[in-house]
Amino acid sequence: MKKRAAIITIGDELLIGQVVDTNSSWLAAELTRIGFTVVNHLSVSDKRDEITFALDTFLPKTELIIFTGGLGPTNDDITKKVLADYFNSELVMNEQVLNDVKERFKQYGITMNSLNNEQALVPDKAKVLRSNHGTAPGMWFENNGNIVVSVPGVPAEVKGLFNDHIREMAINYFLLPKVVYKTVMLTGIGESILAERISQWEANLPEGMSLAYLPGMGTLRLRLGLTSDNKEQALQSIHKQIDALIPLIEEHIYGYDNISLEEVTGNLIAERNGTLAVAESCTGGTLAQMITAIPGCSSWFKGGTVAYSNQAKTNILGVDSEAVEQHGAVSQIVVEQMAVGAIKAFNSEYAIATSGVAGPGGGTPNKPVGTVWIAVAGPDFLISKQFKFGNDRLHNIRRSSLAAFNMMRVALK
Amino acid sequence: MKKRAAIITIGDELLIGQVVDTNSSWLAAELTRIGFTVVNHLSVSDKRDEITFALDTFLPKTELIIFTGGLGPTNDDITKKVLADYFNSELVMNEQVLNDVKERFKQYGITMNSLNNEQALVPDKAKVLRSNHGTAPGMWFENNGNIVVSVPGVPAEVKGLFNDHIREMAINYFLLPKVVYKTVMLTGIGESILAERISQWEANLPEGMSLAYLPGMGTLRLRLGLTSDNKEQALQSIHKQIDALIPLIEEHIYGYDNISLEEVTGNLIAERNGTLAVAESCTGGTLAQMITAIPGCSSWFKGGTVAYSNQAKTNILGVDSEAVEQHGAVSQIVVEQMAVGAIKAFNSEYAIATSGVAGPGGGTPNKPVGTVWIAVAGPDFLISKQFKFGNDRLHNIRRSSLAAFNMMRVALK
Repeated sequence: MKKRAAIITIGDELLIGQVVDTNSSWLAAELTRIGFTVVNHLSVSDKRDEITFALDTFLPKTELIIFTGGLGPTNDDITKKVLADYFNSELVMNEQVLNDVKERFKQYGITMNSLNNEQALVPDKAKVLRSNHGTAPGMWFENNGNIVVSVPGVPAEVKGLFNDHIREMAINYFLLPKVVYKTVMLTGIGESILAERISQWEANLPEGMSLAYLPGMGTLRLRLGLTSDNKEQALQSIHKQIDALIPLIEEHIYGYDNISLEEVTGNLIAERNGTLAVAESCTGGTLAQMITAIPGCSSWFKGGTVAYSNQAKTNILGVDSEAVEQHGAVSQIVVEQMAVGAIKAFNSEYAIATSGVAGPGGGTPNKPVGTVWIAVAGPDFLISKQFKFGNDRLHNIRRSSLAAFNMMRVALK
Repeated sequence: MKKRAAIITIGDELLIGQVVDTNSSWLAAELTRIGFTVVNHLSVSDKRDEITFALDTFLPKTELIIFTGGLGPTNDDITKKVLADYFNSELVMNEQVLNDVKERFKQYGITMNSLNNEQALVPDKAKVLRSNHGTAPGMWFENNGNIVVSVPGVPAEVKGLFNDHIREMAINYFLLPKVVYKTVMLTGIGESILAERISQWEANLPEGMSLAYLPGMGTLRLRLGLTSDNKEQALQSIHKQIDALIPLIEEHIYGYDNISLEEVTGNLIAERNGTLAVAESCTGGTLAQMITAIPGCSSWFKGGTVAYSNQAKTNILGVDSEAVEQHGAVSQIVVEQMAVGAIKAFNSEYAIATSGVAGPGGGTPNKPVGTVWIAVAGPDFLISKQFKFGNDRLHNIRRSSLAAFNMMRVALK
């Protein structure tokens, strides 16, 4: 039977919405990958009765509980005390952890205080998970076949402790069935149109194969899942279904398994031994930021200009100032000149340019908020297109960026 | 007594970690602002027994439950049916909603299909919340003094339905006490050092005033809270405490109430009638992207260059190619020339420049991954500084960006 897991995030900052919880999704993806069924994420306050409520609720429902948060040195963090009491454990000073904490402070060049000393107190019934990414260690409790793990809430510490200890300990402790997911990445098609187009195919999926529609902003993912002890065989079964799916929606498929549109686009440029530059107005650096989040992009990304002022468009990208005056910055001719200018300024083979009204200000009757021109250019093409997005600034920036990468992807295909 | 709320997000995509849940934090902040105590966030699978589990768990524990997700037109979305059954309600066709759905499809220029028709089926015991942001309506159930609300999972639809209906309906239905929070935004100080520095002040906080430490990446927030029916009076009590806090940590306070460091920096530049340009290497567009996320930034932001290649550094920013050769791109002289070059290229008064090794590649014994040079320049200053961050690429980009804005903020003070 599949082992079940629950992820409990502790902290008032989550409950009052000051912090977005990214730990749950990261841990959930990792636990799913090694074969757990993550049945719930729960956020609770840093109060004794709430942490106890989480334990009472999920100990009968799961085999593994991971707590994040509430292990810092300050007074509002009580997870350690509550877990120790729940499992009838005493807090004892752990010399190894104390040394780790001392070493870390020495490394930072910071003087330790008595609060930091307390971070080396650990429940005597827990296995200690030493951290290479912060001062607080993790804890691993075994209790009648249940595992309860507690780690600090800082994302880097969560990832570090999971990668260094928890993944392998969980695999060894539980005998986990293999799980296989394959995700088809789509763009330019809505959920209901897609559902209708593939309804026949969906109805014919084999027994036990799951399908989920995962809509995002400007993208949509179709996730096929199959639980099986034979990974290769399960993948083959899934691929067989995907082969039948492709002819139905080929023009919308840009990749698989959570690869990003910008990475697919970059790979196509790298395959051609080409380089890319970007000239951004309304996307304001987002194209460059998405590209440079990809490790190794420096082999094909030359750089970009955020030409927010018209002066920057003419000075750096060589846009004709008369064209700006006659047609406005948000126009076909200007965005095409921006793309061509970026190729020259950065000495690249390919370029993407954006110019639009992201909002909330800047709209006119002719060019309302959400109007965006995008151009893509290469050695043998210059393509431009107008889009009409919505009223939300960040939404428009995101949609424009995805549309821009997709135009380049399609042009390169 | 304070009314309690729970936020339940539905969807396997959350549980397997393919999507980060941003709805919970947004709703939690809004509910907190109008006086709810949000006791839990819970994510559950789109299965009947899981949605029922959520209702069974939180109906006794809260007065308000908000469900997000599981209202799309596709087959894996069953929230509506489960809620109708749970509250002994029948699904009936709502002509007004049907018209709304038809109008929306007409507006999009898309043909409706039978799945979309089903979106107009609503439980007869629910109040229908018409959506201006998508095809699926929200639902409002009243049940023995409990309110259960269900909205679709797309963030724009969640926000739209909350803003258009739920906030006001909740305020009218419940009699909510006023709640006051004030958050002090800090940078350049760690949690434990801070705790020690303000321990005396913390111990003397008046009865009933709460304090929370909210560490982030490169920033730290101190949140003071007070429940009171008199908002002005509560704010006065909190401000009195903050007045006592300021002398203890003044150099680290950059603002209040979740204002971002980039916005504070931009405001300082705008106050001086100045303009800003950025020259980015390792931050790769993140400075520009953070700035252009601020509505109205075009009045003080001229633009930026992502000079990822050395060629771009020399061609566009006028960096001396000999300096690059002798000292490397990650050096004091190059980052200073980038800042000065950005002022010239964009005709601005102020500039920020970054050059560093974000990783994972590119490190050397002298300049390991995490080494970053930052320069800030203005009419009468040019300041540069070396930082040593860690091994994680995205972490380094984020830390560099915050450090860069903070250097400019301090220079302008």
